[in-house]
Amino acid sequence: MRTERDVNPASSALASRFAAVRALSADLVAPLSDADATIQSMDDASPAKWHLAHTSWFFETFVLRDHVPGYRLFDERWPFLFNSYYEAEGRRHARPRRGMLSRPSLAEILDYREAVNAALLAALPDLPPAVQTLVELGCHHEEQHQELLLTDILHHFSVNPLESAIWSGDPKVPVAMPAPIGWIEGAVGPVEIGCGQPSSSFTFDCEGPRHTELLHPHALADRTVTNGEWATFIADGGYRDPRHWLADGWAWVQTEGIGSPLYWKQCDGGWTRFGLDGRRPVDPAAPVTHVSFFEADAYASWAGARLPTEFEWEAAASGRDPNGGNQLDRASAVEPRPANGGPAFFGDVWEWTGSAYRPYPGFRAAEGAVGEYNGKFMSGQFVLRGGSCATPRGHVRASYRNFFYPHQRWQFTGVRLAKDL
Amino acid sequence: MRTERDVNPASSALASRFAAVRALSADLVAPLSDADATIQSMDDASPAKWHLAHTSWFFETFVLRDHVPGYRLFDERWPFLFNSYYEAEGRRHARPRRGMLSRPSLAEILDYREAVNAALLAALPDLPPAVQTLVELGCHHEEQHQELLLTDILHHFSVNPLESAIWSGDPKVPVAMPAPIGWIEGAVGPVEIGCGQPSSSFTFDCEGPRHTELLHPHALADRTVTNGEWATFIADGGYRDPRHWLADGWAWVQTEGIGSPLYWKQCDGGWTRFGLDGRRPVDPAAPVTHVSFFEADAYASWAGARLPTEFEWEAAASGRDPNGGNQLDRASAVEPRPANGGPAFFGDVWEWTGSAYRPYPGFRAAEGAVGEYNGKFMSGQFVLRGGSCATPRGHVRASYRNFFYPHQRWQFTGVRLAKDL
Amino acid sequence: MRTERDVNPASSALASRFAAVRALSADLVAPLSDADATIQSMDDASPAKWHLAHTSWFFETFVLRDHVPGYRLFDERWPFLFNSYYEAEGRRHARPRRGMLSRPSLAEILDYREAVNAALLAALPDLPPAVQTLVELGCHHEEQHQELLLTDILHHFSVNPLESAIWSGDPKVPVAMPAPIGWIEGAVGPVEIGCGQPSSSFTFDCEGPRHTELLHPHALADRTVTNGEWATFIADGGYRDPRHWLADGWAWVQTEGIGSPLYWKQCDGGWTRFGLDGRRPVDPAAPVTHVSFFEADAYASWAGARLPTEFEWEAAASGRDPNGGNQLDRASAVEPRPANGGPAFFGDVWEWTGSAYRPYPGFRAAEGAVGEYNGKFMSGQFVLRGGSCATPRGHVRASYRNFFYPHQRWQFTGVRLAKDL
Amino acid sequence: MRTERDVNPASSALASRFAAVRALSADLVAPLSDADATIQSMDDASPAKWHLAHTSWFFETFVLRDHVPGYRLFDERWPFLFNSYYEAEGRRHARPRRGMLSRPSLAEILDYREAVNAALLAALPDLPPAVQTLVELGCHHEEQHQELLLTDILHHFSVNPLESAIWSGDPKVPVAMPAPIGWIEGAVGPVEIGCGQPSSSFTFDCEGPRHTELLHPHALADRTVTNGEWATFIADGGYRDPRHWLADGWAWVQTEGIGSPLYWKQCDGGWTRFGLDGRRPVDPAAPVTHVSFFEADAYASWAGARLPTEFEWEAAASGRDPNGGNQLDRASAVEPRPANGGPAFFGDVWEWTGSAYRPYPGFRAAEGAVGEYNGKFMSGQFVLRGGSCATPRGHVRASYRNFFYPHQRWQFTGVRLAKDL
Repeated sequence: MRTERDVNPASSALASRFAAVRALSADLVAPLSDADATIQSMDDASPAKWHLAHTSWFFETFVLRDHVPGYRLFDERWPFLFNSYYEAEGRRHARPRRGMLSRPSLAEILDYREAVNAALLAALPDLPPAVQTLVELGCHHEEQHQELLLTDILHHFSVNPLESAIWSGDPKVPVAMPAPIGWIEGAVGPVEIGCGQPSSSFTFDCEGPRHTELLHPHALADRTVTNGEWATFIADGGYRDPRHWLADGWAWVQTEGIGSPLYWKQCDGGWTRFGLDGRRPVDPAAPVTHVSFFEADAYASWAGARLPTEFEWEAAASGRDPNGGNQLDRASAVEPRPANGGPAFFGDVWEWTGSAYRPYPGFRAAEGAVGEYNGKFMSGQFVLRGGSCATPRGHVRASYRNFFYPHQRWQFTGVRLAKDL
Repeated sequence: MRTERDVNPASSALASRFAAVRALSADLVAPLSDADATIQSMDDASPAKWHLAHTSWFFETFVLRDHVPGYRLFDERWPFLFNSYYEAEGRRHARPRRGMLSRPSLAEILDYREAVNAALLAALPDLPPAVQTLVELGCHHEEQHQELLLTDILHHFSVNPLESAIWSGDPKVPVAMPAPIGWIEGAVGPVEIGCGQPSSSFTFDCEGPRHTELLHPHALADRTVTNGEWATFIADGGYRDPRHWLADGWAWVQTEGIGSPLYWKQCDGGWTRFGLDGRRPVDPAAPVTHVSFFEADAYASWAGARLPTEFEWEAAASGRDPNGGNQLDRASAVEPRPANGGPAFFGDVWEWTGSAYRPYPGFRAAEGAVGEYNGKFMSGQFVLRGGSCATPRGHVRASYRNFFYPHQRWQFTGVRLAKDL
Repeated sequence: MRTERDVNPASSALASRFAAVRALSADLVAPLSDADATIQSMDDASPAKWHLAHTSWFFETFVLRDHVPGYRLFDERWPFLFNSYYEAEGRRHARPRRGMLSRPSLAEILDYREAVNAALLAALPDLPPAVQTLVELGCHHEEQHQELLLTDILHHFSVNPLESAIWSGDPKVPVAMPAPIGWIEGAVGPVEIGCGQPSSSFTFDCEGPRHTELLHPHALADRTVTNGEWATFIADGGYRDPRHWLADGWAWVQTEGIGSPLYWKQCDGGWTRFGLDGRRPVDPAAPVTHVSFFEADAYASWAGARLPTEFEWEAAASGRDPNGGNQLDRASAVEPRPANGGPAFFGDVWEWTGSAYRPYPGFRAAEGAVGEYNGKFMSGQFVLRGGSCATPRGHVRASYRNFFYPHQRWQFTGVRLAKDL
Repeated sequence: MRTERDVNPASSALASRFAAVRALSADLVAPLSDADATIQSMDDASPAKWHLAHTSWFFETFVLRDHVPGYRLFDERWPFLFNSYYEAEGRRHARPRRGMLSRPSLAEILDYREAVNAALLAALPDLPPAVQTLVELGCHHEEQHQELLLTDILHHFSVNPLESAIWSGDPKVPVAMPAPIGWIEGAVGPVEIGCGQPSSSFTFDCEGPRHTELLHPHALADRTVTNGEWATFIADGGYRDPRHWLADGWAWVQTEGIGSPLYWKQCDGGWTRFGLDGRRPVDPAAPVTHVSFFEADAYASWAGARLPTEFEWEAAASGRDPNGGNQLDRASAVEPRPANGGPAFFGDVWEWTGSAYRPYPGFRAAEGAVGEYNGKFMSGQFVLRGGSCATPRGHVRASYRNFFYPHQRWQFTGVRLAKDL
C-alpha cells in the first residue's frame, strides 16, 4: 500500500524540485541543434550534450545504480563517457575529448534523461533519507551544470566567426550611469561563518563547518564595478602597467595578449561584447563581467582598493535575500543588468574574493565517490561569491563558495571593491 | 539562340560529370547526422560539412564569382570559413578550428551545394573553354575531398569510444591466404614519365612535364603486403628494433608509442581493426592499410627489400587499366579486399614510394590562386601511387601523384615491395 | 672629519654583517668550476654565477647607483643580465636563458663582487638610515639566494649522470629511529601573528602587519615526518591512490610520473637519495625532504592528519630559539639530520603549511622597485615556515614566510603533521 | 720486429693524418673557457666539449675497444655520455641534455683526447686494413664535427647578449660589388654520379653507388647569391609574400617570425650580422649565409629561378679543385669572403640543392653500428653541396653530400641559382 508514502510531504517536495530542475535543463538547450550541443570549444568547457548526460549519470550512478534494486543501466557504455572526475568510479573519457562525441545524439541523450527521470521519480518515495539527500545533492549539482552549460555555449558561439545569437532580444536601452561607488562599513571582530551540519536546508560540504573568523576594520563597495569604469581602466593603460598586477597575472597578460574582458572587441572606435544575444555595444552602466581574478585584482590595485575576503563578503551578505536580484529563471536575457546603485549582493555577476579556496577548520570530505565533490579542488583556486545572472534562482546563499582558477573568466565573473579602514 | 550550345557535346559531358561528382558527395554523407558532420577529430582532418562546403566554395569562387557576371555569393561570410589554404584569396578560418562550426548546419550547407549546382549548370554552356577547364579541375578537386571525407569520418568515429559503424555490412568471410609474393622484373634504362600539356584528358600540373627518367635493374612485388605478413613483422619485434627504422621514424615510434597500424587493437589475443563498418577481426589475407611511410620503409627493411621509386611504379603501371580494382563507386564497403595474387596496381591501398614529392624537370606552377594547388607542398612529403578503395573510380591514372608526410597514416595507405636486381 | 661616523655603532655592525654575508656566498662557490657555476638545469633554478652577480646587482642598483653620487656601474651591460624580475628596472635577460651565459666568467663575477663590496663599505658610513635599511634588505636578500644557490647546484649536479658530490663527507652513521610522533596541543582563540613596523629587527614586508588571528583546537606533531615513514607511505601505494590527493596534485603525479621524493632512486632494492655529498642510502631516521606541497598534503591525508596552518605554526614556534637547529653555517654537510624527537621548529627542512600565500590584513607593498620584492607573488603559492639546513643561520624567525608553488620540491622541504582536536 | 711495419707508408700516412686532424680540433677550442665549452644553446647544437669527447669516443669504441686487445676504457661512465645516436651502442644521454654536463671538465676531456691519441697511434701499425679504414672514417667524422663545433659555438655566442667575439680580426675592408650573375650551361643527358667502392680515396657510403643520372637542359649561376642581393629581396617584401614560399616554409616564417638570415639585425638603419668575430656590418659583396632551404627556395622563386639538383651541381663541380676556395685551415677568419665572380664551387658556403636526401640506386647501409652513420637520416632532409668556410680543407669533394632539414640554418649555408634552358 503506497498511501502513506504518497503523502510524504518531504519526498513529494523533493519530487517537485527534481522535476523542476530537470525541466529547466531541457529548456535551456531548446534553441540548440545536435551539432550546437556537440562542440567543446576549449578544455575548460564541455558540450551542452555532455552536461545533459553527465547530470543524468550522477542520478543514475549514485541513486539508481547504488540504491534501487534491479535497476539496469540505460547503456552500459555511457558511464565511461559521462563520468566527469570521480576517480572512485573508474576510468573515464578524457576531458579534452568530450567534443569528439557526435554519438550519442542529442535526441538519445534527451531519451536518457527521460528514462532516468521516470526511474527516479518512481523510486523516490521508497528511498531512505540518506539517499534522498543524494537526490537533493544531484539537484544542486545539476543547477551548477546549468550555469556551466550557459557559459560553455556562450564560449562556443563566441569562437564561431558567424557570432550567432542563441536568444534574440531587443537591443538594450541604455540607462543612466549609476552613482559613484559608496562604501558600506563592515562588521569588526569575531563573526560566524559557514553552515554547520545538520542544517535546516541543503548546503555543500565545503560551506562548513560553521566557525568563527575575525574581521578587521574594512568597507565594501555598495555595487560592483561597471563596464564604464572598466573602460577607464583600459584607457588609463591598466593592462600595460605591471605595477598593478600580480606576477602570475602579468605573465598571463603578456603570454595571452590580454587587453580587455573576454568577449570584448573594439568596433568603429567603441567597445562591443559578445553575449547570448549576439554581439552588441558594451553598456557602460552594466556590471563588468568575464574578467579573471588577475584582472579583478589589478583593477582593485589601480583603483587604490583591494578585493574583499570571502569572510567580509559573507558577513555583509548575511541577512540579505539570496533569491533576489538578477538570476536565472528561464533561458532568455541571461546578462548582467545595469547596476542600480543598491547593495545587491546576489545575482548579476560572481564576485571574486581575495580568498584562496581552502578548507574551513575541521573540514572533512565525505567518504566515497561523493567525497570527491569539492575537497580535492582546494588548491590553486580563488573563492567567488553571490551567484550570477546565469545561476538558477534559489541555488546560492550567503555561505555559498564558488571557485575558479585565477586566469579563468568564461563565467559571469565581476568585481566588488573593498578597502581597509 | 541556344540551339548550338545545347548540343555542344563537351559542355554536356562536363555537365554530366559535374552532376555525378556532386551527387556522390551528397551520397557519402547520407548516413551522417549534423553532429557527425561537424566534428574535427584531429588537425589533419576536416569535418564532413567542411568538405561539402569547401568543394562548393571552390566552384563558387573560381568559376561563379570570377566568371559569371552578376553572380552573388550565397553568403558573404562563408568564403572566410571555407577557403582551405589559398593565400591569394585572403585571410581564412584557422584550420585546427574547423570543428568549432556548428553553424552553418549540414542542412544549410546542402542548400549551398544545391544553389551552387544550379548556378553552375545554368552557366556552364556559356563558359569559355579555359573556365570549363576550371570546372573540370573542380570536379577532380571534389573527388580528392570525397576520399578525405571518408578517411576523416573514419578517424572521427575511431576516437569515439562507442566505435559506431558508418555502414553496416556482413562480417567478412575469411578467404584463403594469397600466394607468396612474386616478383615482376621492371624496365631498365630511359622511360617516359608523367603527362605533358596539352593532354587529351585531365591531369594535375604536378604530373608534368612529361620527361625521361632512367631506371636501374629492379623488380616489384606482384601484390601489396598483407595484414598477415604485417602481423608477422609485429610478432618478430619489428616495431621495437631501431635497425629497421629511419631515425625520424624511430623517434616517431618512440614518441607516439606506435606498435601496429592505425586502428589496430588487440582483443582476446587477436588483432582487430576499426573500419567504416566498425571494429572487426583483421583479415590476414587483405592488404595492410593505415601504415605510415616510416612503417612502410621499416617493413621493407625488415623484409630485405625496399620501397619502389615513383618512376619504377609508374613504368610498371602504365598500360594497365586504372579504372579496375577496388575503388569507390558508392559508399558501401569501403575497405581493402583480400589480395588475389594478381598484379593489380590500382585501388585497394595507396602505395608508398621511396620518392620525395618534388617538382619534375621544367615544372612551373600556374599563375594565380589555382597555382597554389600542388606546387607549394613540394617539401617534406613522399609520393604515393595507385589510388585506394576510397578513391572515386575514374580519378587516378598511372601518372597520378598523391603525397603525404611520412608519419601520416589515416589514409588507406599500404606497401608494395621492390628490390634491386 | 670622519671620527663620529667611524664609531657609529649601527653602521659598523651593518658593515660587519654585510662583509660576513658576502664572504659566505664566496665560500659556498669555492668548490665550483666556472662551468659548474654556469649551468641552469631547469627554469626554476639559476646558475651559481647568476646568484653571485644578481645579489651584487641588487646592492649596486638600489644602493650604489641610486644613493652614492659619482658611482659608475661596473659594467653597463650587466644590469640587463642580472636583474631578476624588477619590472621597474626595465627589460632583462629572459629567466630560462640564464644558463646561456658563459661570459662573464666566474672570475669576472668574483671581481664584480669585490668591487661592489669595496664601494659599498666605503660608502656605508655616509648613507642615511633609510639607505642603510636597503643594505640590510640586501643582506637578507643575499641570504635567500645563498639557499637557492645550494638547492640549484644540487639540482644541477643531480641531472648529470656522473652524480658527483660537491662536498665529500664520511658516510653517515645510521642512528636509531626516532620515537613515534607525539602531539603538542596548540593555543586556542585569538593570537597575535606577524611583525609590525617599526620593529626592533629586520623583517620582510610580507610578515606584517601584526594582527590577530583565531586559532581553533588543534595539535601539531612534535617532529617532522621521517624518510622511514615516507617509505611506508610509498610501500602502501600512497602515490597510486587518488583518494589521498588534491586533484591538481593527482594530475601532477600522473603527468610527471612521480613516485617518490625528488632525488630518490631505488638501487638494489633499497632507496637512495642524491645530496650535496653524492648518492647515498636514504637514512630512515632523517626528516624526509624534497617533497612538494601536493605530496605533503597527500601524506597527511593518508596519515589521517592535515598540514598546519601558518598561524598554528607561528603560534607554536614563537618563543623558541630561531637560531638553533640544523642551519647553514658553512658549506659542509648541508643535509637534514636524524630527527631527535625534540620539538625543533627551526632548521632541517622547510615545513609546508596548508596556508595559501596571501597578504595579511592591511598589507601594502612598498613604493618603487623594492615593492616588487614580495607582494606580487601572492597568488598560487603556499607558505612554508621554519628554515632548513640550507638556510643561513640567523636568517629566519617565527614570523618568517617562505613560499613556493605546490608542485615545487627542489628546496629542502618537509612535512609536519597537524590535527584537529 | 717492427721494422717493416714502421715503414708501412699507408699506416704512416694515416698516422700523420690522424695526428693533424686531432690537433686541429684542439686548436679550434683554444680560445674557449671551460664554461664556453659546456653550454648547449639549442637542441640542434652540442657543447664544444661534447664534440671533443664524442669524436674521441668514436675512435675509442670502434677501434680501440673493438680491435685492440687489452684496451681499457678511459672512463667506463663516459660512453653513456658521448655516444651520439648509435642505437647499437645502447642507451645514451639525451641529446637536449648535453649542456647539463659541467663535469667532465674541458681539461679532463683534453686528457681523454691525449690518452686516445696515444693508444691509437701505438696500435695503428698493427691494425688490419679494415680497421685502418675505421680510423680513416673516424678522421672524416672528426672533420665533420670540427665544422659543427664552429657553427655551434657561433650560435652559443650569438644568444649571449654580450655578443663576444671568439676571434678578433680587423674590420673587413668593403670590396667592390661582384658582377651580375652569369650563367654556366650544364651538361645534358646521362652523366655518371657518385663514387663507387672500392675507390682510390675515402668516400662516405651515401656517395655511392656510382650510377647514371639524366640531366635536362639547364644552367647554373657562376657564383652564389650575395648579401647585397639578399637585402634587395628583403626590401622587396620577400619575407612577407606567400607566393614565393613553399607551404611549410611559409608556416615556418609565420610561426618563427623570420624576416632575415640568422644573425642579421638592423642597427641604425643598416644590416649587421653576428659572426665568430663579433657583430659587424653586413658586407654586401659577400655570399649570403645562414639561410634555410625554405629561404633559399623562396629567394630562387622570387628571382625567377630555382635551386640546382644535386646531380646538376655534381656534374658542374666535377673536375674542379675541391681543395681550393675559402675553407678551414686554422681557426681564424672563418667567414664567407666577398664573391670574386669566378665559378668557385667549393668553400665559402654550403649550397642548398633542390634534391631530397635519399639513397642512390643500389645503396645499402653497412652492417653494425657504423651502418647508422648516414642511411638512417634519409628522410625529410635536403642535400647541400660544396663545403663552406668552416669545412676543413681536404674534407669535401664533388660527390660529397651534406644534408640538413629545410628549416635549419645555423650552418654556413648559401644559395646558387639554377634555371631551365
